[in-house]
Amino acid sequence: MARDAWKHDPRQALRAGADFDLATFDRAGTPGWGGDRDAGEAFTVHRGEELSELQERLYAEGRSGGSRSVLLVLQGLDTAGKGGIVRHVMGMVDPQGVALASFGVPTAEERTHHYLWRIERRLPPPGRIGVFDRSHYEDVLVVRVDNLVPEAVWRPRYEEINTWERKLIEAGTKVVKVALMVSHAEQGARLMGRLDRPDKHWKFSMGDLATRAKWDDFQDAYADVFRYTSTEEAPWYVIPADKKWYARLAVTEILTRTMAELGLDWPQATFDVDEARRALQATMR
Amino acid sequence: MARDAWKHDPRQALRAGADFDLATFDRAGTPGWGGDRDAGEAFTVHRGEELSELQERLYAEGRSGGSRSVLLVLQGLDTAGKGGIVRHVMGMVDPQGVALASFGVPTAEERTHHYLWRIERRLPPPGRIGVFDRSHYEDVLVVRVDNLVPEAVWRPRYEEINTWERKLIEAGTKVVKVALMVSHAEQGARLMGRLDRPDKHWKFSMGDLATRAKWDDFQDAYADVFRYTSTEEAPWYVIPADKKWYARLAVTEILTRTMAELGLDWPQATFDVDEARRALQATMR
Repeated sequence: MARDAWKHDPRQALRAGADFDLATFDRAGTPGWGGDRDAGEAFTVHRGEELSELQERLYAEGRSGGSRSVLLVLQGLDTAGKGGIVRHVMGMVDPQGVALASFGVPTAEERTHHYLWRIERRLPPPGRIGVFDRSHYEDVLVVRVDNLVPEAVWRPRYEEINTWERKLIEAGTKVVKVALMVSHAEQGARLMGRLDRPDKHWKFSMGDLATRAKWDDFQDAYADVFRYTSTEEAPWYVIPADKKWYARLAVTEILTRTMAELGLDWPQATFDVDEARRALQATMR
Repeated sequence: MARDAWKHDPRQALRAGADFDLATFDRAGTPGWGGDRDAGEAFTVHRGEELSELQERLYAEGRSGGSRSVLLVLQGLDTAGKGGIVRHVMGMVDPQGVALASFGVPTAEERTHHYLWRIERRLPPPGRIGVFDRSHYEDVLVVRVDNLVPEAVWRPRYEEINTWERKLIEAGTKVVKVALMVSHAEQGARLMGRLDRPDKHWKFSMGDLATRAKWDDFQDAYADVFRYTSTEEAPWYVIPADKKWYARLAVTEILTRTMAELGLDWPQATFDVDEARRALQATMR
């Protein structure tokens, strides 16, 4: 039996509040967790079973006319572990209940549209957990750092995003925003790890070094994301990501606790169960 | 260590050839497997690890400019276990590498288009394993049984589908077609199981009984699918599905062996690895 070593709800410990300071944030920490790595991995699996059932209830609700969905927004620099969250956390639930979308640097074609255009097309249908591997926040992150549009264009986006997310939430989508933050040293080590393994070379490009060179600019841009868009309805959870096991444990816990609060019941039968049973019995040869 | 109890390649044992007879097909059999259920479940997990690596290689190839993909077509009547294959077989690989699409009875809107229109829009991108939970074969199954279009319209589709699949394969998509066949008695028992559990009521509708009443028509329609569309390039594998563990074991094995034959190598680095290593080292603070 996996032991629950959370000292308190990680949504409190990890939430980016008014006093959050990214510059001093410990990226190797394990806030709120009172156990070691083995205990954390075991508890992730344990919670995964609960998450899997919650996902099935959400799916059943969606199939039965419900309009609710969940949207997990994943942000983080290269090597922060977004792919590992998709694989190891979302991999614990039924693929049929997950709607995954990845967003890169907006293409020239995408930039001819409003920046939320490509996002809205990939929102989860009712009953699903949508997962955004990067998201609309790229439009105030890489777009800002690389000057893809002038400041007069990206600056108002923080407020626009808050308004847009509020409407999304009102329409029935629970928004869970998670930023995985690695340290500069750990990112360097992970990139070196990719260079050291021929089966990981495909994950590397020289562009990763160009992005790494803009580390401080990205940190500033992330700090502003947390400052301006960690709202009451859709707070940011900032996850120390140097320890992959902790990041996966924390995201699993945040998602499971959030979904447990949705009050997901199994849908009521819309037919007469006894009558259906009799009719079925009559078909047995 | 899981033991390989396959007596021979299940692709031979399960392939619908010229002499295949659906009427006498044993739906509770375990063709080709020389072990019991426990051994089968263990070997499914073992092969799942291999499948997962093959999927990652395919994904890497797609990310590196390759155009190949895999398409797993799942067919079967209600309760045959298509959802279980998605959950338990595809659930063993990284969700990022899987593109899942479900197809129901064609809607009125879909029927204003060519029947392959909705299918082509959901083909897997390069590097992915596409999974079709039902497919274009519905257009010669439910569409035929329920007379949604006249015979003069559905009858030519077998040949059209063969031609269309041939082009798809030539363009780089490996097509794996799997039909899960349950017995009439087992379908009855599974439907009753849904009625007996309030958490499964959402999976049931009175329409399931209407469909079950057309059992013989569906068997005839499936027999014609196997007769006319089990081609050299894209044969049908007909899976006895009364034992869920066997169906999952067999589909895992067929998919793994098929992908193992694709000759998937890790992509070569397109950059100078030593130069990248030096450049990265210079960024370490």
